[in-house]
Amino acid sequence: MSEEKREATIEKETGRKETSRIEAFSDGVFAVAITLLVFDLKVPLPSAGDSFTKAGLGIALFHQWPSYLAFITSFATILIMWVSHHSIFKLVDKSDKPFLFANGFLLMLVTVVPFPTSLVAAYLTTPASATACAVYSGIFVVINLAYNMLWWIITRHRLLIPTVTPAQVRALTRNFLLGFPVYLLATLLAFWNPYVTIAICSGLWIFWAFTSFERSPVTAASLERRM
Amino acid sequence: MSEEKREATIEKETGRKETSRIEAFSDGVFAVAITLLVFDLKVPLPSAGDSFTKAGLGIALFHQWPSYLAFITSFATILIMWVSHHSIFKLVDKSDKPFLFANGFLLMLVTVVPFPTSLVAAYLTTPASATACAVYSGIFVVINLAYNMLWWIITRHRLLIPTVTPAQVRALTRNFLLGFPVYLLATLLAFWNPYVTIAICSGLWIFWAFTSFERSPVTAASLERRM
Amino acid sequence: MSEEKREATIEKETGRKETSRIEAFSDGVFAVAITLLVFDLKVPLPSAGDSFTKAGLGIALFHQWPSYLAFITSFATILIMWVSHHSIFKLVDKSDKPFLFANGFLLMLVTVVPFPTSLVAAYLTTPASATACAVYSGIFVVINLAYNMLWWIITRHRLLIPTVTPAQVRALTRNFLLGFPVYLLATLLAFWNPYVTIAICSGLWIFWAFTSFERSPVTAASLERRM
Amino acid sequence: MSEEKREATIEKETGRKETSRIEAFSDGVFAVAITLLVFDLKVPLPSAGDSFTKAGLGIALFHQWPSYLAFITSFATILIMWVSHHSIFKLVDKSDKPFLFANGFLLMLVTVVPFPTSLVAAYLTTPASATACAVYSGIFVVINLAYNMLWWIITRHRLLIPTVTPAQVRALTRNFLLGFPVYLLATLLAFWNPYVTIAICSGLWIFWAFTSFERSPVTAASLERRM
Repeated sequence: MSEEKREATIEKETGRKETSRIEAFSDGVFAVAITLLVFDLKVPLPSAGDSFTKAGLGIALFHQWPSYLAFITSFATILIMWVSHHSIFKLVDKSDKPFLFANGFLLMLVTVVPFPTSLVAAYLTTPASATACAVYSGIFVVINLAYNMLWWIITRHRLLIPTVTPAQVRALTRNFLLGFPVYLLATLLAFWNPYVTIAICSGLWIFWAFTSFERSPVTAASLERRM
Repeated sequence: MSEEKREATIEKETGRKETSRIEAFSDGVFAVAITLLVFDLKVPLPSAGDSFTKAGLGIALFHQWPSYLAFITSFATILIMWVSHHSIFKLVDKSDKPFLFANGFLLMLVTVVPFPTSLVAAYLTTPASATACAVYSGIFVVINLAYNMLWWIITRHRLLIPTVTPAQVRALTRNFLLGFPVYLLATLLAFWNPYVTIAICSGLWIFWAFTSFERSPVTAASLERRM
Repeated sequence: MSEEKREATIEKETGRKETSRIEAFSDGVFAVAITLLVFDLKVPLPSAGDSFTKAGLGIALFHQWPSYLAFITSFATILIMWVSHHSIFKLVDKSDKPFLFANGFLLMLVTVVPFPTSLVAAYLTTPASATACAVYSGIFVVINLAYNMLWWIITRHRLLIPTVTPAQVRALTRNFLLGFPVYLLATLLAFWNPYVTIAICSGLWIFWAFTSFERSPVTAASLERRM
Repeated sequence: MSEEKREATIEKETGRKETSRIEAFSDGVFAVAITLLVFDLKVPLPSAGDSFTKAGLGIALFHQWPSYLAFITSFATILIMWVSHHSIFKLVDKSDKPFLFANGFLLMLVTVVPFPTSLVAAYLTTPASATACAVYSGIFVVINLAYNMLWWIITRHRLLIPTVTPAQVRALTRNFLLGFPVYLLATLLAFWNPYVTIAICSGLWIFWAFTSFERSPVTAASLERRM
């Protein structure tokens, strides 16, 4: 029995791919990071020595809208990143050291997201908003680079499931390259108008949600079926 | 071998449904969100320049009862939501994009729950309690809408396990529709008496705990058996 | 084929017991709760307008010893509780509503543990230490009750794996009953000497670690083998 | 059928090793601990009564570089520790009580890491940096001891998969012993120059990332295949 066949047999027997513990750990990090975003929603406090009326608390909550905007955008972005991560891992068969560390680097950036989110929440309506928004968008530039690096390693190191077609590879490659110029532009535009930066970041996840290469997870499942 | 049969074969071999990674990720988010509620229990601090006596600390802890009430109600509600989520996923066979994003929207709202919980804990005994309780109950109105949307997508997009009966679908549909008017009423009543709002929110999870459509998880297991 | 046999077949095929999603969710909550304890370790701050010398920071860290003691005791206790939870679930075959909610109640108490831990860390060396330690130990009284309730429901509702022997049931029953008087005593003694309370709580987990009924998880595995 | 063969059969059927729940729980703790590190990145606040300009916020963010350095080093170190933990568990077949508690002790130290990370972030550029860095590095000395203890228990108590070769055991033993003198040296050097301590801690994970005994997770998979 050839090496490859034996591997496939083991995988069928155990129902787990070799990369599944890496995937489970990554999912854990994604789940915690996305849930920690709630800490950017802070209970408003009245000025010292004062207390809120009904309307006062309502107004204070309303004035926190940059927090809500930043929270929703970050949540949606991490969710899309999780879906992308999932899409990548469904095509991956084996792992090696560079793959492991490229994935680790990506996870580090995912856990960082609550920090620039807080920054935007705190400074969007202040004179320092350009800096806050540039940092926010800049993090996504680096995250995009990390995705491209991970994907590049997977394709170069031949870690893919053998049945993945060149067309599928090209589709994902295009998908990840697309984000780079957009996030870079969003970062630069922060110094002209920070709201444009936030609009682009929000627009991008809405665009991805509706057009991402993967019509439905069923596609990848059908792939496995063909194996 | 038909597509469906092959799918069933794969599922039997791997012991995993196609939706199981989405379910595992959702479980992670539920587990983190429910555990973060503990941050609404704050260590009481003595007034500046003062220190607590034995009785003083006891009284200070007692005065935090709105925190405990909010914590218990939110914990129980997230737990029920997790059980409901579990009930839904046991009947789901396939996923598609709208399903994925409806589930993501639901998870976002689940992670938000610690925020209005803090709000109630901080303002229940102040003049601003009506606003805090309306926000608290209002979040549950939106969560109820998210459940209805998720369930609507599942039934319309034919993502259910083929053996689910129309009666089962109707039971769940009724179950999710029920919450809407009750939470809406609770939200409106906050401006009349905030304690009534909290009483309704607490009452609802107690009611659900005792009467929820699902007699026991065994039911769904028997379902699978019949496949 | 009888119902029971078919169930066993499914479980063999999928490698999962019916209770495994409840177990996975519980594990998630335990893992998050035990990790959040680190927030009770606070970076010491110098008095306003001052800054730390090398020795000054060392001394400040040393003075935080109640935090370290509370952290270690709580970590060890949650770990033991996780092992106990694991021991219970390995013997459980089915679930029902009361079981689900008894488990939920237990999880709620587990997530609460970081709160009394902070309380002890903050007040152990102050005049209010009796109250802090009584609350700390009191939470464990309630957790012990929750374990007894969960175990009682399991045995009364016949949710156990059929091969579990009465001797095994008695061993676990005794194990859970044991904790109650000890934690109750520890709670009462807090008003005489809070350090005794902490010593008993620490002693109890050390005792459990060394004598717990379950020699090794191998025992339960051998059980399954005999099925 | 011999005990061992039967065990292997069960494992093949269920696709799970006896140690897999311990491993899953450990992964959860690692995932949460590594994600909590982000709390060491704090949103900078302007001096009281002042507000940030664009440049002002940029400068304030730049001055937080010790936080970023500590964050990256701690993240990478926990990631390497997770990979090591994974490497150990892939070779382990059985568990016993001492193994369970050695693993618990290790997890406790892993969850502690965010604390000394905060310490370094807060005090690296102050006169107290020697103390902060010594504590930081000192924690890693203890973590290294915990790994050595865990590995020692595994080899002495014969918990290894039978096919693990003495050469593999020696390689891991050497790997874990290596860290001890290096971290100890780093701790002592903190009192001479704290930056050297941080440089060594960072250097160590970079070294491990590139040379760790395990060429790729494939190795361990091949092991299993040979069983």
